[in-house]
Amino acid sequence: MADTKDTVVEGVEALTLNGKAEAEPVETGTDAQAQEGGAAAGAAVEDVVDPWNVASSNDTGVDYDKLIKRFGSSKIDDELIARFEKITGKPAHHLIRRGMFFSHRDLHTILTLKEQGKPFYLYTGRGPSSGSLHVGHLIPFTLTKWLQETFDVPLVIQLTDDEKTLWKDLKVEDAIKLARENAKDIVAMGFDVNKTFIFNNLEFMGKCPAMYQNIIRIQRCVTFNQVKGIFGFGDSDIIGKIGFPAAQAAPAISSTFPFLFGNKKVHCLIPCAIDQDPYFRMTRDVAPRLGFPKCALIHSTFFPALQGAKTKMSASDQNSAVFLTDTPKQIKNKINKYAFSGGRTTVEEHRQLGGVPEIDVSYQLLKFFLEDDAKLEEVRVAYRKGEMLTGEIKKLAVETLTPIVEQHQAARKLITEEVLDKYFELRPLKFAS
Amino acid sequence: MADTKDTVVEGVEALTLNGKAEAEPVETGTDAQAQEGGAAAGAAVEDVVDPWNVASSNDTGVDYDKLIKRFGSSKIDDELIARFEKITGKPAHHLIRRGMFFSHRDLHTILTLKEQGKPFYLYTGRGPSSGSLHVGHLIPFTLTKWLQETFDVPLVIQLTDDEKTLWKDLKVEDAIKLARENAKDIVAMGFDVNKTFIFNNLEFMGKCPAMYQNIIRIQRCVTFNQVKGIFGFGDSDIIGKIGFPAAQAAPAISSTFPFLFGNKKVHCLIPCAIDQDPYFRMTRDVAPRLGFPKCALIHSTFFPALQGAKTKMSASDQNSAVFLTDTPKQIKNKINKYAFSGGRTTVEEHRQLGGVPEIDVSYQLLKFFLEDDAKLEEVRVAYRKGEMLTGEIKKLAVETLTPIVEQHQAARKLITEEVLDKYFELRPLKFAS
Repeated sequence: MADTKDTVVEGVEALTLNGKAEAEPVETGTDAQAQEGGAAAGAAVEDVVDPWNVASSNDTGVDYDKLIKRFGSSKIDDELIARFEKITGKPAHHLIRRGMFFSHRDLHTILTLKEQGKPFYLYTGRGPSSGSLHVGHLIPFTLTKWLQETFDVPLVIQLTDDEKTLWKDLKVEDAIKLARENAKDIVAMGFDVNKTFIFNNLEFMGKCPAMYQNIIRIQRCVTFNQVKGIFGFGDSDIIGKIGFPAAQAAPAISSTFPFLFGNKKVHCLIPCAIDQDPYFRMTRDVAPRLGFPKCALIHSTFFPALQGAKTKMSASDQNSAVFLTDTPKQIKNKINKYAFSGGRTTVEEHRQLGGVPEIDVSYQLLKFFLEDDAKLEEVRVAYRKGEMLTGEIKKLAVETLTPIVEQHQAARKLITEEVLDKYFELRPLKFAS
Repeated sequence: MADTKDTVVEGVEALTLNGKAEAEPVETGTDAQAQEGGAAAGAAVEDVVDPWNVASSNDTGVDYDKLIKRFGSSKIDDELIARFEKITGKPAHHLIRRGMFFSHRDLHTILTLKEQGKPFYLYTGRGPSSGSLHVGHLIPFTLTKWLQETFDVPLVIQLTDDEKTLWKDLKVEDAIKLARENAKDIVAMGFDVNKTFIFNNLEFMGKCPAMYQNIIRIQRCVTFNQVKGIFGFGDSDIIGKIGFPAAQAAPAISSTFPFLFGNKKVHCLIPCAIDQDPYFRMTRDVAPRLGFPKCALIHSTFFPALQGAKTKMSASDQNSAVFLTDTPKQIKNKINKYAFSGGRTTVEEHRQLGGVPEIDVSYQLLKFFLEDDAKLEEVRVAYRKGEMLTGEIKKLAVETLTPIVEQHQAARKLITEEVLDKYFELRPLKFAS
């Protein structure tokens, strides 16, 4: 089983990005120059990882071990996974076992709560910046759903349409529409309506006074200097941005949802990509001052762009991503055309030297989506040995992704406005404790 | 009729305050050293006038003519008053005629709307920092009520309990309670429930999505640099303060109240003390960018502290103010003990030189509350000539204020939670257009 060192960013490849996430899409065929190697190429410049940018100027991509040190989180190690499996009585999800969820804060506390039969809830979210999601967006929700089923706990999902109004050139009305569209994709993943509450800030704020009241409580504990340090805000930033972190923090305080938790001070576990950690570092600082427990976190790596792991898959770059709205033909074409290859320049060379699965995007897609551990290992070994060719691994990636996307599309068709409204309704949820 | 040069801050007196509003209460009897004089004493240091501080280091108090220039507003002159009276068909309110409402922005626009039979609404508010109001708090609401009756227009009253939570050491729950208590005093003034909507931010935000949506729209148009310039915020200020101005701005945009105005873009007139003008300068800058008209304003002077016009009456300083909860005995004692006198040190001197009504707090109280113009002028002349003594003018002030406070207390007793709830209910209002 791959440990966290074997995640999507391992390895060096020939692409040269300009250090920022806005790089032009670069076409990379099976003949791309791939070079083996670990943490080579002198990581002089720090990776850019904040809630709005993910990029590495280093050829090896984001260094997650460094990021853990920089953010002050903890690595999900074998011991934690063992404890997790012991307490839940089942194998950890492949996204945890394979190191896609690689970092955490206070996950032990959550496991102890489970041991003691005490309640907690899950909180995750999405910034609705585009109407259609890509396959990478499924990842945090896939793990969240699994955690919800494993622990039988309530889940709140925040759609930060206010954030997108403030950051993007997006009207309030349009951001709300995008939030609703994105929520359909989330619901289509099969979340239990009895245990899941979904809300978009631009509407929820006007339905639940506790939300604004907690935002004010949080905003009273955080200075401009602090958000400057945490998020890099400056004097020329709009005041909406400066205040926004409190809106993402509030759902980690259980009193934000009186219809779910009453006055109870319930612990919260947040599955999210690690670029969201700054929000929750701030939240963890504030919560005890409001008399609430610090939220726990479980962090994922970034989902690689088709062009390679230096940047994450982006909904605003059509060619970087496989979308949940793509047809089988589009999926096939995109992967064949854009998925960065760890293969060699000629078949002969490939047979002789073998491929580099660690930098091969098709292999990374399989790591995320192929649940069968034995099959995945088989692929890895065969590709590494040169027995499996680039065309073959791409074909397997297409065959793995296509039914997932098709099933999603079928499920999404069933999500009417009425079905959606049920998730958005303020109501008690049904859960064990 | 006194013009604006005769308002509460005219004149020089012997008190030495330390330039800030937090001066210790100083006992000033009828024998205080009073000196005549106009704009003497070299106004080197600028008056402090912002939403949180009002103080003049100059012996003459706040210079309102200078303030009009600094703020860029317009003086309410005889021509405007004449037009006002012509269009409304009745004499202007004594607070306007006597120059207590002395400054404005776009009041001509509002009068033109009235001429054309087009709608507008009134918006005013209060920051609920204490449970009991003082007589000075009646002033903006007195004029607002008169404007509402004169123009037959809807009125929205905002209680900024969020602001007080952010600025004062006040819990959310306590700020909400203070807002409700203050609202009882406001309702007791006789506002027509069919034409008046009262709301406190900490609860209204959770009832009306349009409020938060407009706040986000406004916060997207204003940078930290701008609020720094307008309000003097700094890097060590909490982010709640930095974002708050949008919450005070939003009610000046009619779409904040869809249950009142639907999608109509209705003009807004704001009666307020001039220290609130910074909020609305910002609002006037933003409104056209959101496709809404700029709010109009009518500004009052500050209500003088009993100790004199250098600072305003403050609810947090018991001895500076006559409270609406004071007994007749307390009113009498406070005015006799603290009301700064423009009289001379001895009766003989007073008879000979005459008093100085412009700096005499009892006379200022009469200017605000004694509606009879002829009687007021009689008092002014008699006091000026020395025919009326300090004890006599204080007695008249007590006799004028006491029934107002008593009537208020009687009216307030009738304001039950149920009566109050009606004003807070989100509902259409009844008005002419």
